[in-house]
Amino acid sequence: MSNLIEQAKQAQAASYLLNLLTTEQKNKALQAMAEALRANQNELIRANQLDVTAAKAKGIAKPLLDRLELNDKRIKGMADGLRDISSLHDPVGEILDVWTRPNGLTIKKIRVPFGVIAIIYESRPNVTADAIGLCFKTNNAVVLRGGSDAINSNKEIVKVLKKALVDLKLPAEAIQLIESTEREAIGELLQLKQHIDLVIPRGGAGLIKMVEENSLIPVIETGTGNCHVYVDDEADFTKAIKIVLNSKVQRPSVCNAAETLLVHEQIAENFLPLVYEKMCRAGVELRACPKTLKILPDLKAATEDDWSTEYLDLIMAVKVVNNVDEAIAHIRQYGTKHTESIVTEDQKAAEKFCRETDASTVMVNASTRFTDGGEFGFGAEIGISTQKLHARGPMGLREITSYKYIVEGNGQVRE
Amino acid sequence: MSNLIEQAKQAQAASYLLNLLTTEQKNKALQAMAEALRANQNELIRANQLDVTAAKAKGIAKPLLDRLELNDKRIKGMADGLRDISSLHDPVGEILDVWTRPNGLTIKKIRVPFGVIAIIYESRPNVTADAIGLCFKTNNAVVLRGGSDAINSNKEIVKVLKKALVDLKLPAEAIQLIESTEREAIGELLQLKQHIDLVIPRGGAGLIKMVEENSLIPVIETGTGNCHVYVDDEADFTKAIKIVLNSKVQRPSVCNAAETLLVHEQIAENFLPLVYEKMCRAGVELRACPKTLKILPDLKAATEDDWSTEYLDLIMAVKVVNNVDEAIAHIRQYGTKHTESIVTEDQKAAEKFCRETDASTVMVNASTRFTDGGEFGFGAEIGISTQKLHARGPMGLREITSYKYIVEGNGQVRE
Repeated sequence: MSNLIEQAKQAQAASYLLNLLTTEQKNKALQAMAEALRANQNELIRANQLDVTAAKAKGIAKPLLDRLELNDKRIKGMADGLRDISSLHDPVGEILDVWTRPNGLTIKKIRVPFGVIAIIYESRPNVTADAIGLCFKTNNAVVLRGGSDAINSNKEIVKVLKKALVDLKLPAEAIQLIESTEREAIGELLQLKQHIDLVIPRGGAGLIKMVEENSLIPVIETGTGNCHVYVDDEADFTKAIKIVLNSKVQRPSVCNAAETLLVHEQIAENFLPLVYEKMCRAGVELRACPKTLKILPDLKAATEDDWSTEYLDLIMAVKVVNNVDEAIAHIRQYGTKHTESIVTEDQKAAEKFCRETDASTVMVNASTRFTDGGEFGFGAEIGISTQKLHARGPMGLREITSYKYIVEGNGQVRE
Repeated sequence: MSNLIEQAKQAQAASYLLNLLTTEQKNKALQAMAEALRANQNELIRANQLDVTAAKAKGIAKPLLDRLELNDKRIKGMADGLRDISSLHDPVGEILDVWTRPNGLTIKKIRVPFGVIAIIYESRPNVTADAIGLCFKTNNAVVLRGGSDAINSNKEIVKVLKKALVDLKLPAEAIQLIESTEREAIGELLQLKQHIDLVIPRGGAGLIKMVEENSLIPVIETGTGNCHVYVDDEADFTKAIKIVLNSKVQRPSVCNAAETLLVHEQIAENFLPLVYEKMCRAGVELRACPKTLKILPDLKAATEDDWSTEYLDLIMAVKVVNNVDEAIAHIRQYGTKHTESIVTEDQKAAEKFCRETDASTVMVNASTRFTDGGEFGFGAEIGISTQKLHARGPMGLREITSYKYIVEGNGQVRE
């Protein structure tokens, strides 16, 4: 039998103690955690090598191997990340609103931690440190379930960071790592509604769907991004080409990269060859709708599947649309409500697109790649929410808090 | 086969049109809906009589029958409710935040509708009009599944309100009533994630659990309230007795009524007989912990089940605790995170209780009954959320909105 429920209970008990920590205590602890990572660099790399060797033997894909591997620079990056979090404004305890009712009751809405947050993520050891830092800063206990390929790295990181808390006589049980790498452990975790307040799945569509279908705990979905760039007939071509190119190629493997280009038919004949040339040079394969094929007959034809595929690769679907309305309709049908961008100098078209496109973030004359906690100025992020409940778009510290009302009276009762 | 998916698709299509309505258009329509209810009073009562007759024949409980029945006064109440909603501030389109990044991007966070909201509720026809009004005011389409005992009343209310929209050439498909009274229809509804953005279950614990376990759509839970009043050793007895009594008896059948009284042992001997006398006169049965029994030996002993029971009736469990810490620990174990109240003149005890009690609303020297949209000044409410995600406590108009980010640039791309 697993001791998962025991871990969740320990996290919950620790969350009550965490809730009492001051900003100063939390920041000091985050600094100590950063130092501990640097001081234990050799042990971390040794543990990570076990994972890397096993992953190589298994033959995992190169980008995954790259994400898995730790070195001096990356450990410094993790430590710097924790220091950055310590320097961010502490949102917990903020008074969000306060008002007095005619009967004299004063109602205060204050920001509070969630309590216990479970995070299910890929084999990326740096996420382990980030998630611990963000949750700790917001007085949340955290239950981590990282990808199985990173299990040795994660164990070592958690060991080092818990030790740093113990040294400061702080509740180290606030950090719980699920060591079972069985998929069943996730199913079990998702039942523990009594002890866990929120679950954030990160990773592939399959994992997110599995969590959604099985969780009794409230879920914030992250990350699936079938993002579009729509180039309007009133677009500035120079901006448009820069934006389309950046949205597709600057980092194709991430959720805020664009997957489909929509082009207004009035400009298609002039614009498409320009973008095609740049895309060829960047090694991007374009997949074309029938109207695009008339202009660029050498392209591969897009199939129905292309419109809903998140390539995460140097591939882009291209469709010519009659107008902004058809662009909006296409996005409604195929988008994942992550990020949509319009390139136009026409204020009216921009306003229409902003109002009618249902996405966490709508860009006007900017790359889709800006949907990001760092780029938004949040300092850090735990993921990018693609749902509308609670948190939308980049999730920083505020987004992993809840609120409660404190009502102060003087003996008031209801008539 | 049901046409539920067809209804959800129609609601979604209508939500895009609703999204374009101005505050003025919405308010005018809400007024017209109010007038339509008054103008069709006789038809509404006739339809309601079918429900009432069937319910009587089935022998449903009196309080349920009372909630089901419509009369002139209640229809006027429903119409007034719609007029009240029309006069409330429109939260949609509010700019929640705006800032400019060093690269010149301007990021605006604006309040937007959810899109399509499904509400599953009891056999209370007035909720049908309220839910339609609140959703319409926030540009949300609504899919309603009311209790089967109210089906004829609901059909007639929806018919009248849709007709009012048609007369104004507004998208009446934004209101969808599920006419199937089979429980399976709920299961089917909960799968329609592609077309419904949010589901709000109202009603018994069984329904809420069923929705939670089966929904692919994000859920906001409402209503289960095992609320406590803790009377501290520093309590003012006059306030304490008023508050305990009001929390229990002013309307025992609702979620914000108190179910357990916790009393500090230092004052138990003096306080309990006073509260017992008042409770006897109000017809309340007290169920006592062993320490309480020593003071009031005639009481029935509380069993373990009593501490977690939401009586919704003139019954109250009573427990003597050592101090505020034991009160907090008891609430952590048995509470439902709805409303908890402390009665004390000791500012430190109040602060401790407020900080460490995990509930949507913590009252200091006030009745638990104040956790309510009307009492909070929200003007109306769609339910009281007992979860931490997105919305906590009374849910007014703002709580049935989401937000999106609009990022305005001038050709920015990521380096």
